[in-house]
Amino acid sequence: MTGKVSLIGAGPGDPELLTRKAERLLQEATCVVYDRLVSDEIVAMANPKAKMIFVGKMPQCHPVTQDRINEILVEEAQAGQRVARLKGGDPLIFGRGSEEAAVLRAQGIPVEYVPGITAAQGASSISGVPLTHRGLATGVQYVTGHRQADKKLDLDWKRLANPDTTLVIYMGVANIGQIAVGLMTEGLPGTTPVMAISRATTSQERRMTSTLAKVAQDAREAELKAPTLFIIGQVVSLYEAQGLPLEDDRREAHA
Amino acid sequence: MTGKVSLIGAGPGDPELLTRKAERLLQEATCVVYDRLVSDEIVAMANPKAKMIFVGKMPQCHPVTQDRINEILVEEAQAGQRVARLKGGDPLIFGRGSEEAAVLRAQGIPVEYVPGITAAQGASSISGVPLTHRGLATGVQYVTGHRQADKKLDLDWKRLANPDTTLVIYMGVANIGQIAVGLMTEGLPGTTPVMAISRATTSQERRMTSTLAKVAQDAREAELKAPTLFIIGQVVSLYEAQGLPLEDDRREAHA
Ligand SMILES: C[S@@+](CC[C@H](N)C(=O)[O-])C[C@H]1O[C@@H](n2cnc3c(N)ncnc32)[C@H](O)[C@@H]1O
Ligand SMILES: C[S@@+](CC[C@H](N)C(=O)[O-])C[C@H]1O[C@@H](n2cnc3c(N)ncnc32)[C@H](O)[C@@H]1O
Repeated sequence: MTGKVSLIGAGPGDPELLTRKAERLLQEATCVVYDRLVSDEIVAMANPKAKMIFVGKMPQCHPVTQDRINEILVEEAQAGQRVARLKGGDPLIFGRGSEEAAVLRAQGIPVEYVPGITAAQGASSISGVPLTHRGLATGVQYVTGHRQADKKLDLDWKRLANPDTTLVIYMGVANIGQIAVGLMTEGLPGTTPVMAISRATTSQERRMTSTLAKVAQDAREAELKAPTLFIIGQVVSLYEAQGLPLEDDRREAHA
Repeated sequence: MTGKVSLIGAGPGDPELLTRKAERLLQEATCVVYDRLVSDEIVAMANPKAKMIFVGKMPQCHPVTQDRINEILVEEAQAGQRVARLKGGDPLIFGRGSEEAAVLRAQGIPVEYVPGITAAQGASSISGVPLTHRGLATGVQYVTGHRQADKKLDLDWKRLANPDTTLVIYMGVANIGQIAVGLMTEGLPGTTPVMAISRATTSQERRMTSTLAKVAQDAREAELKAPTLFIIGQVVSLYEAQGLPLEDDRREAHA
């Protein structure tokens, strides 16, 4: 009697940004596997009888490796559990959802994906900075600013430095200086507006606007807390146009 | 006593992919303004007492212009209504949400955005084709394949032809031939896998896989119905690896 695994996007933080399907599956699940990016309020929505397994990193502790996470999912499903595997944002955008699914499928375990509001969309809706906008951005691109410890950041700056596209950097805090230089070297003006947003859609949200030329220094001085996203492009110019204060938390901005 | 307008993403079609916030606001709204991309089942979730205003295009009828939509939103809000303005997918991704918001703000009307699962995420989760995947795609880019009637498609093919990035084309059916040629001219191999998916996450969903070299002809022969999305890139190679049938509707694939 094999169970199944639902790989579920939990959105950027605000529990109201879960989909209805994610909510239902969380309540039906007999086992919930979740990591650090999933907020406490969302974890609290699970069925109270469900077995809860935390697989995120804790300060001072060894992280649970991806291999061990895969093993846990296989073990629980093979024991007949209906597993809700919760991931921050969307499981198929920088979420390794398809890697976990491949392992499960190889064991003959049924898998389904449930999409979630990705961090870029949470950041966009809460700050009012659109990802596309006629005349300012004909498209949007999500890239990761992170590479594994031993590899260098080898982004294709020429292709990324597109003034017509909104560029959203995930996992970019450590490398934002290098990213900004790469984009400017390939022709994006230093005056290109940038927004950094940390913990978007949560009560600890913080926002900062800057420019490509200054963002590395501004980000360092602001001591941005993870998780942080950078939105780069002309759409950021609409932020001030809304009359919102420059730095504020969500509750103030929407009061 | 001015009302307010919530610009709400209704997701790709499946009513379970609405966020919990969208569901709540639909039930609180006294007036719902919606267009063609929003499915009947979602419209039916509105408060039964709400005033329902359809602003989509109907065959044989003149479409409601964007100016008229803006006027309706302003009028209803000024009459004190709590307006839920429903849009397909996410309001800030090819949704003109920020254009409507600018008009409302200029009239002093409070506006908020509620993100939705965008078509690319619906297509990705339902087909099992990830938008990013280690070793296959370090990022994802959404572009529009549509230009206004009098303008030509002037996409930056060099920047789009990135073998490391998943490319998702919204509104691309009419121009997919030109898009494929543009990408191949700038170096993407004709063998690059492509998936077309129509009406993703609804009971009328249809999928087709092809390659850049053949997609124009295959799409024509398949007579794809709007709305259709194209996913271009190595991630599409994972589709068959899942053991799903090549063309099927959602109910079969997930039975
Ligand atoms: C491993 S990725 C996971 C992305 C996730 N699957 C998604 O779709 O949003 C983690 C990165 O997502 C971004 N992120 C996630 N949640 C965020 C939030 N609430 N505010 C800002 N950035 C966030 C940050 O850039 C962080 O480094
Ligand atoms: C005007 S755009 C609106 C996009 C929407 N705001 C979103 O975020 O998904 C319309 C295009 O979205 C895509 N689309 C929307 N819903 C879709 C669905 N259920 N299946 C496939 N494509 C869809 C198609 O490419 C269509 O031409």
